[in-house]
Amino acid sequence: MKRYLFTPGPVPVPEEILLEMAKPIIHHRTAEFENIFAEAREGLKYVFQTREEVFILASSGTGGMEGAVANTLSSGDKALVVNGGKFGERWMKICQAFGVEVHEIKVEWGNAVDPQQIEEVLKKDSSIRAVLVQASETSTGVMHPVKDIAEITRQRDDVLLIVDGITAVGVFPIPFDEWGIDVLVGGSQKAFMLPPGLAFVAMSQKAWKFNEKSNLPKFYFDFKRYLKDAKNNTTPWTPAVTLIIGLAAVLRRFKEEGLEKIYTRHARLAHGTREGLKAIGLELFAKNSPSPALTAAFAPSGINAGAIISRLRERFGMTLAGGQDQAKGKIFRISHMGFIDRADIIAVISAIECVLKDLGYDFEFGAGTKRASEILGTE
Amino acid sequence: MKRYLFTPGPVPVPEEILLEMAKPIIHHRTAEFENIFAEAREGLKYVFQTREEVFILASSGTGGMEGAVANTLSSGDKALVVNGGKFGERWMKICQAFGVEVHEIKVEWGNAVDPQQIEEVLKKDSSIRAVLVQASETSTGVMHPVKDIAEITRQRDDVLLIVDGITAVGVFPIPFDEWGIDVLVGGSQKAFMLPPGLAFVAMSQKAWKFNEKSNLPKFYFDFKRYLKDAKNNTTPWTPAVTLIIGLAAVLRRFKEEGLEKIYTRHARLAHGTREGLKAIGLELFAKNSPSPALTAAFAPSGINAGAIISRLRERFGMTLAGGQDQAKGKIFRISHMGFIDRADIIAVISAIECVLKDLGYDFEFGAGTKRASEILGTE
Repeated sequence: MKRYLFTPGPVPVPEEILLEMAKPIIHHRTAEFENIFAEAREGLKYVFQTREEVFILASSGTGGMEGAVANTLSSGDKALVVNGGKFGERWMKICQAFGVEVHEIKVEWGNAVDPQQIEEVLKKDSSIRAVLVQASETSTGVMHPVKDIAEITRQRDDVLLIVDGITAVGVFPIPFDEWGIDVLVGGSQKAFMLPPGLAFVAMSQKAWKFNEKSNLPKFYFDFKRYLKDAKNNTTPWTPAVTLIIGLAAVLRRFKEEGLEKIYTRHARLAHGTREGLKAIGLELFAKNSPSPALTAAFAPSGINAGAIISRLRERFGMTLAGGQDQAKGKIFRISHMGFIDRADIIAVISAIECVLKDLGYDFEFGAGTKRASEILGTE
Repeated sequence: MKRYLFTPGPVPVPEEILLEMAKPIIHHRTAEFENIFAEAREGLKYVFQTREEVFILASSGTGGMEGAVANTLSSGDKALVVNGGKFGERWMKICQAFGVEVHEIKVEWGNAVDPQQIEEVLKKDSSIRAVLVQASETSTGVMHPVKDIAEITRQRDDVLLIVDGITAVGVFPIPFDEWGIDVLVGGSQKAFMLPPGLAFVAMSQKAWKFNEKSNLPKFYFDFKRYLKDAKNNTTPWTPAVTLIIGLAAVLRRFKEEGLEKIYTRHARLAHGTREGLKAIGLELFAKNSPSPALTAAFAPSGINAGAIISRLRERFGMTLAGGQDQAKGKIFRISHMGFIDRADIIAVISAIECVLKDLGYDFEFGAGTKRASEILGTE
């Protein structure tokens, strides 16, 4: 059976990139690899829209998140965490594991945080040293207003903005320097359309000032070591050679397509997906501010989302993600990151219609596919 | 030019494994991946020779080393570190980064530690909570006597034996349960003949007792989370899917060959390499106890090892490793791990002879290749 992968990470890896990574392996302390590494560094700066160094870690995104905390904060510091999903929760757990006190702003799943709420907390509590948030909360398909939050934190020398951009960087605009973000984390298996195993992290000069005083233990994720070695196009520990070779190749594609077109592509696919699902009466999980990275939608009432997902896999070879924790069984999630194209979106919406029909859902068959096609246009 | 990779990690990856990893990527929360993960877990237990769980981390070996410390020790604990090379030094730096006091046993590069020295220190200083050592010190090509050290630490409920087995596991016998090792770390790009990006860690029941009291901060490398999820054939964070697919395939090969044959193969290749180099008058860097993982040899007097290495690359497409830090320019290192075979060893020794002849070294041309061939036999 032909297979389609619609999970919000990993996303499909282009065949050319798979084959690039399947070439005979090379040693990392060679001129050949150093050239590739230099290209990857340069490309990451382009995608992160920064003049700062972007570190390449051999870890999943969570390792980058841990590093973001461990390299900037100190034990007993207080951090404001926006908790609007499974990954907001992860920020809290990381802080707690490292002895950083958490002030939680709990956001109902499916909603974006109100920046004013952050501003108020920061005004009331001057002991807060950082705001931690997801640019795109993968568990809910919601985009948080990072630009607005950055406008608040930029005015404070004593507060950092630490952003999990794992399903944001390379998906929609999140210009690191221009917005004044302090730490931004990306991951290989999202817009970068690579296998999981790499995390990317950028740090602002303001964050480096925090780093000087930070007393949290760190070694594997000690960014100071990465900064020192990056200048020589190497890493303190053995890098994930094949993934970095793939990364350089992906970033070449990014430069060819250009950031603007990449953002437009994601926005259009997301729009088409949302409108297609709405046209057959489905309700989106994101109440407002849906993420261009993925679309989460409720299963129709009386139908378990798990039944939709398993039928899509069995009948159409399509793998979608379900809901996590409190959203389990209620929603399904479709990624439109990276190597997903117009044809994929039309195909998945059509397949969802087939499955819903089988499951006895009452709707105008074909209406979703038609609507998505209209939105996606003829390009 | 045809290329040969003789560095002690990464080592060549078999073509079949490269292509296995180049297959369309799959999602990690699927029955298909869980089956692969189960196979990898089972295979790792076979290679580590343990009934304990072996964790699969998305990181380089150093991440596994950090986890070994962070999951067992507490701040202010004292650890005895055997420092006989660059990786012994790394144990020290990790301990220091996490606030663990270090009692250093400094071993001259090229030598193995004397277990009696460890016994004496442990007798004198009852505050030591762990002995940290390399089974095979990759910077010097020396094997430390882990079995003898384990006999000492096994008699002490209050002292752990934490072993960096990154160039040992899968190379020579290091039976985790039988010897009574407490934490053992392996890495993908060594005997496992995979690209870098995975670390493997086994923990004894004694180590888990330490874990209960351990207060060092940990999250990404929190082994308790890995233990809980391993039973469901998953990991707490997104695993490095493609590398684990490669791992399962490699472990299938391991089971087919059998551990005994794997160990014999490495021992024979190492022996042939050493004798071949000695036959042309070269001196080994390992004074005693050379590692079956790699052979480090001095360049002849008056010849810079760097000149040998660069000529091997330019003329024969062969990449060898040089010396690190204090051994830089003095030695070259040849790996015989993983996918390296008889033909490779004969080829590299013959190439070294060619290069040495060019560099004006006086010896009987062909004697090294002849001697190596005799040792390696006709099998």
